[in-house]
Amino acid sequence: MNHQQLFHSIQRKRSFLCIGLDSELAKLPRHLLGYQDPVYEFNKRIIDATQDLCVAYKPNVAFYEAHGFEGWLTLEKTAQYIPSDILRLADAKRGDIGNTTRQYARGFFDQMNFDAITLSPYMGSDSVLPYLQYKNRWVVLLALTSNDGAAEFQYLKTENGALFEEVLRQAKEWGSIDNTMFVVGATKADLLKRVRQIVPDHFLLVPGIGAQGGSLQEVAKYGLTQKCGLLVNASRSIIFASNGEDFAEAARAEALKIQAEMADILEQAGL
Amino acid sequence: MNHQQLFHSIQRKRSFLCIGLDSELAKLPRHLLGYQDPVYEFNKRIIDATQDLCVAYKPNVAFYEAHGFEGWLTLEKTAQYIPSDILRLADAKRGDIGNTTRQYARGFFDQMNFDAITLSPYMGSDSVLPYLQYKNRWVVLLALTSNDGAAEFQYLKTENGALFEEVLRQAKEWGSIDNTMFVVGATKADLLKRVRQIVPDHFLLVPGIGAQGGSLQEVAKYGLTQKCGLLVNASRSIIFASNGEDFAEAARAEALKIQAEMADILEQAGL
Repeated sequence: MNHQQLFHSIQRKRSFLCIGLDSELAKLPRHLLGYQDPVYEFNKRIIDATQDLCVAYKPNVAFYEAHGFEGWLTLEKTAQYIPSDILRLADAKRGDIGNTTRQYARGFFDQMNFDAITLSPYMGSDSVLPYLQYKNRWVVLLALTSNDGAAEFQYLKTENGALFEEVLRQAKEWGSIDNTMFVVGATKADLLKRVRQIVPDHFLLVPGIGAQGGSLQEVAKYGLTQKCGLLVNASRSIIFASNGEDFAEAARAEALKIQAEMADILEQAGL
Repeated sequence: MNHQQLFHSIQRKRSFLCIGLDSELAKLPRHLLGYQDPVYEFNKRIIDATQDLCVAYKPNVAFYEAHGFEGWLTLEKTAQYIPSDILRLADAKRGDIGNTTRQYARGFFDQMNFDAITLSPYMGSDSVLPYLQYKNRWVVLLALTSNDGAAEFQYLKTENGALFEEVLRQAKEWGSIDNTMFVVGATKADLLKRVRQIVPDHFLLVPGIGAQGGSLQEVAKYGLTQKCGLLVNASRSIIFASNGEDFAEAARAEALKIQAEMADILEQAGL
């Protein structure tokens, strides 16, 4: 999937929603716990209930690794279950040098067939370039995250502005708008302006809507491009909307609310 | 294992060697390929042949993840096979926010019983603190890496010196010398001076000896503390010293060479 194809998917679905599959076992509806693989059963039902409303699913790898190799198997099965016209994004936040990076790329791109992976930029270009040799796959680089600790390093002043700006400035040269996105935390919507000055056309993955409290209108106001250029993620607010037997319907209702707001935003922007 | 216990282990073994288990399937001796789990068989033999010569083993998680859930199982078995008086260090380079970090900690500390994990500092303190709530476990933070791309961000000038210095300065306040180490690339031995001005007592994990070409003498000259304060890693130069049936003996011979040099260094320093 390239930039244009992702935009078409957004136009068709009237949605730029990414649903985060942070499927923590302890938060699952109790009636699923009897299954051999409760997290997979949960993910399947969430995907069945929401796949017409979103353009990406983003399993947070940590929640799978926490269960060792069995969790990893759940992750593989989940990746396979996601329909191939929806972006499969592994939220892995890896970052290592060339030799090692090629191994991660094998695991996520070849083995599990993810379309995209989140990466930390701290080690520089040679920790990212091996992923960019794959056709139709994406790296999603951490630029500006939405957590409290983000300020400690990402806002540090360098000779060329804040560190996150320097990350954007350098990293946009490594690939293209067809294979590179940036994570930009939604709770800093005013900073989106500064981000867009540096990367006017790249897709941004914006976490922090929903449970983390960001505003979709604010994000759209400063982040929208001519080809949308936004993937807005919600995780817990959708997948854990109910922990009863109606969890899938509740998830759908929640996703529908966000999708409707996104449809309005796209409409108003003439997209 | 705390600072003092790690130092005792170093004194007893006359070694501050960490052996990296970057056990890439394609590089394994062919006669192991008939086993059901060749990488595990390889690791067992390497560990058997070298465990008296090193104080830490560091599986590079990427090489296991590349094989999906089966690789993850190999990693779990390998972690269990490492004797409990040797530091089990997962080279995972994770980095995510609190909620997610707790899941990674569960996976690596509770599930697999690793003593230490490498982390990227880009997201700040709340991506690290949850690990520090574990007793007798370590975080090993990337500060200054030895790859070419390291210069792109880690050397960026901030108001308080280079970014890697700012990382050291802030991160040393998050934990203590009993639960925090820093990755400092050996090929930049002159920079070790600057590192030691900020963290005079912390253990440093120094990759880049051997295949990556750093000098042990240089590292010791600028990095050694009163309690050694160094873990020097070698991976491929040891584990792939031979790819014949004698690979374990060849690995031992290579490790022995480094250990002998380390014994001299410790002796000369009166440790």
